[in-house]
Amino acid sequence: MTNRIAVAVLGATGRMGSEAVRAVDAAEDMELVAALGRNDPLSTVLDAGATHIVDLTVPDSTEANVRFAVEHGLHAVVGTTGWSDERRADLASLLEAAPAVGVLIAPNFALGSVLASAFAAQAARYFESVEIVELHHPNKVDAPSGTAVRTAELIAAERAAAGVPASPDATETSLDGARGADVDGVRVHAVRLRGLVAHQEVLLGGEGEQLTLRHDSYDRASFMPGVLLGLRRAAGRPGLTYGLDGYLDLGN
Amino acid sequence: MTNRIAVAVLGATGRMGSEAVRAVDAAEDMELVAALGRNDPLSTVLDAGATHIVDLTVPDSTEANVRFAVEHGLHAVVGTTGWSDERRADLASLLEAAPAVGVLIAPNFALGSVLASAFAAQAARYFESVEIVELHHPNKVDAPSGTAVRTAELIAAERAAAGVPASPDATETSLDGARGADVDGVRVHAVRLRGLVAHQEVLLGGEGEQLTLRHDSYDRASFMPGVLLGLRRAAGRPGLTYGLDGYLDLGN
Amino acid sequence: MTNRIAVAVLGATGRMGSEAVRAVDAAEDMELVAALGRNDPLSTVLDAGATHIVDLTVPDSTEANVRFAVEHGLHAVVGTTGWSDERRADLASLLEAAPAVGVLIAPNFALGSVLASAFAAQAARYFESVEIVELHHPNKVDAPSGTAVRTAELIAAERAAAGVPASPDATETSLDGARGADVDGVRVHAVRLRGLVAHQEVLLGGEGEQLTLRHDSYDRASFMPGVLLGLRRAAGRPGLTYGLDGYLDLGN
Amino acid sequence: MTNRIAVAVLGATGRMGSEAVRAVDAAEDMELVAALGRNDPLSTVLDAGATHIVDLTVPDSTEANVRFAVEHGLHAVVGTTGWSDERRADLASLLEAAPAVGVLIAPNFALGSVLASAFAAQAARYFESVEIVELHHPNKVDAPSGTAVRTAELIAAERAAAGVPASPDATETSLDGARGADVDGVRVHAVRLRGLVAHQEVLLGGEGEQLTLRHDSYDRASFMPGVLLGLRRAAGRPGLTYGLDGYLDLGN
Repeated sequence: MTNRIAVAVLGATGRMGSEAVRAVDAAEDMELVAALGRNDPLSTVLDAGATHIVDLTVPDSTEANVRFAVEHGLHAVVGTTGWSDERRADLASLLEAAPAVGVLIAPNFALGSVLASAFAAQAARYFESVEIVELHHPNKVDAPSGTAVRTAELIAAERAAAGVPASPDATETSLDGARGADVDGVRVHAVRLRGLVAHQEVLLGGEGEQLTLRHDSYDRASFMPGVLLGLRRAAGRPGLTYGLDGYLDLGN
Repeated sequence: MTNRIAVAVLGATGRMGSEAVRAVDAAEDMELVAALGRNDPLSTVLDAGATHIVDLTVPDSTEANVRFAVEHGLHAVVGTTGWSDERRADLASLLEAAPAVGVLIAPNFALGSVLASAFAAQAARYFESVEIVELHHPNKVDAPSGTAVRTAELIAAERAAAGVPASPDATETSLDGARGADVDGVRVHAVRLRGLVAHQEVLLGGEGEQLTLRHDSYDRASFMPGVLLGLRRAAGRPGLTYGLDGYLDLGN
Repeated sequence: MTNRIAVAVLGATGRMGSEAVRAVDAAEDMELVAALGRNDPLSTVLDAGATHIVDLTVPDSTEANVRFAVEHGLHAVVGTTGWSDERRADLASLLEAAPAVGVLIAPNFALGSVLASAFAAQAARYFESVEIVELHHPNKVDAPSGTAVRTAELIAAERAAAGVPASPDATETSLDGARGADVDGVRVHAVRLRGLVAHQEVLLGGEGEQLTLRHDSYDRASFMPGVLLGLRRAAGRPGLTYGLDGYLDLGN
Repeated sequence: MTNRIAVAVLGATGRMGSEAVRAVDAAEDMELVAALGRNDPLSTVLDAGATHIVDLTVPDSTEANVRFAVEHGLHAVVGTTGWSDERRADLASLLEAAPAVGVLIAPNFALGSVLASAFAAQAARYFESVEIVELHHPNKVDAPSGTAVRTAELIAAERAAAGVPASPDATETSLDGARGADVDGVRVHAVRLRGLVAHQEVLLGGEGEQLTLRHDSYDRASFMPGVLLGLRRAAGRPGLTYGLDGYLDLGN
């Protein structure tokens, strides 16, 4: 089959990387042409004939990897953290000189989570009340989760832009902490429970009705459909896209 | 306040109509200028200076009411059933001669329900599996609910358009009915329980993750925010819009 | 039908009382023989031939009402608040002289809520982790709800008695309030959302599994099955019972 | 530590058995004294000084294993299937001659699942309506699950014993299968969704309220706390106990 996507996975020996190797290998419309560990030279990618790279390495090396890809006309799907505003601006400049190349940098590849956040932002202006409950395993060291904080910020920005007032709350007496953390005016509650993995509910309430958007992440495998979708769509979306929602047809 | 929306409610003595009277009356940016029962002449609407009507009457009279509104340059928000394809086509023709007039006909005014259906349709292409569970009070005579059937049809159409195969199902032995009803390939389960009102869950499943979109309707009051939103936006959306989702900024 | 339970409702004009009047009237195995408002003399109860009273009055009058019932050999089901430990001790003394009379004082008559609390207490010793999420309408002035606090206290006591250690929690950095209120070591989160009534979830987590006990209260009518059950069982449970769970066959 | 429980695991190389080996080994109050595969002689158990066995073998060998244990005064916790009524009757006879020995045979060791079933049975008499929704991965070949069928049977038996009429249902027109399977009058719905493991909800509804008992099983590890609890309690419960709920303090 001549038109399969030729993919090189960078960071192939890490936890996410090894999942990606398996997922690309199993995808009928892709060919895994290279799988690089930490010490493999980047030129391997070119020798193998890759047209796309997946970068699942570490913050220290991801920038050099992606610049190398862009400079050689390869599309890139990037799950590594560490892409500050400044790094992303530099990359966008570089991409101006490579107008056919598409790069996706995504802090989260779980389709369900990305969709839930996007839907929450769209819905938030239509309801009087909104709160977030996130639930994770008890070994997690931060509360609330980064995803919950970002979802709350997104919701708050949409409500501010639409002129929606704060969620009503008549609480007069409260035990400390009962009403959750306040993230830009959105209450966020963090549950920690043995047996759980990573779960989030956005609860929206209006007169006589409730809309609940829940995402359950049971397994790291949940990131792979998003990585594959990124690979399939990168060539059709030249330039830099930040966030997997930019590749989904969600309007707004 | 000179720029409040001047609203006449038709069908004001019915269950939905009397809710609408209350809701319009309570809205700060609206003025209730007329509330018509079954025997009040339509000219009352003009005498009262209405710029918008809300039609919550009966299938036999809604068409005449809306045509009257359009012919007199009034915007209309319509919750009455009975708008066949043919009736809607006739109305669209009439609206060509009144290019400034906006008409919204909506089978469902519960914002949460409309949003949940729209989100389900958007998400359905990204997951291997999708099923619907609807839950209602035990006095309901049909199963599954009309909303669940329409949601399933919408999901099935989106999946077909995106080339998504059927949800996987290895069931070999089954008690009759266990796997629910088949609506265009989407399994729909109907629960009937004392104490409930009207609830629906769309369950989407992929490798390692689940997305759940749940809507709870507790009260007829849940339709009023949708009616008010229709009134606020009708003047800005000339022509005929079918379905409240057409007034929401949901992309696609 | 000669063996119907002859019931007098005290506080019949209040919100709960008028529901009780309707419920007793509709019950096939009961006869509503009297419905007393604030100024009706207690002797009405005797004149009407009541064998049971339901007291849904106010803290100031409930004690006199119940003592009157006991002194005249009538069984009593009491939903009025204000029964301090001291008042209950006095009543128990009085009941010693009336060994055939049964009195039920219940702070909560919603069967589902009472069962959920009892089940939570029974289950709490078998799971590493337990947290509570309660959800109410936004006009509620206290957080968390009294029911949630009592459920947490009950759970904490059962876990202490069984020697279960605290729920694990590795949180190192947290936004203020994210992890909820601490009630005897049990985390309790209070959500406030327009459209809701009164809801509570007890979440129990262990290695690889989760048990969730959820109660939804949609309507004051939910208290009536508990009141009727109390009336049906009071004669068979002489003495003072505190809490509807004492009338349910829940073991322990 | 002299009073640790000395445990031999039979079937130690199977999936459940190897989990049990790990769990017993990790338990501070137990000592793993033997781990037998298919060809190891039963005498190994005695040589190792075991006081308890865990049998996680196959239907063909479990009976001989347990009889051997009883005859040598060892307590036994048995998760193997194949214990027909007749086999259990034979074993009970044998145990009469060993009055100090406790044997637990359990078809399900997930504490949460066992508790949810027991609670459902206790609660079922107090609600007008009850239905079950079970949700599993799409590779499951039977629908509904065996656990859901047993839960429905248990509920139906409790309701029959308490004289509770059938759940109300006014359905007149229905798509085939929409109302689920009928198990002794209890409606059971089976959802199949990629990403899920094994989940069950018992929904109980009454006037104005709902009680939901949900169990999520994410991992085979969820059986181990039940196995360990069985080992800890077997010596204190002489004779044959069928079902883990017999070891839990649930009343009834």
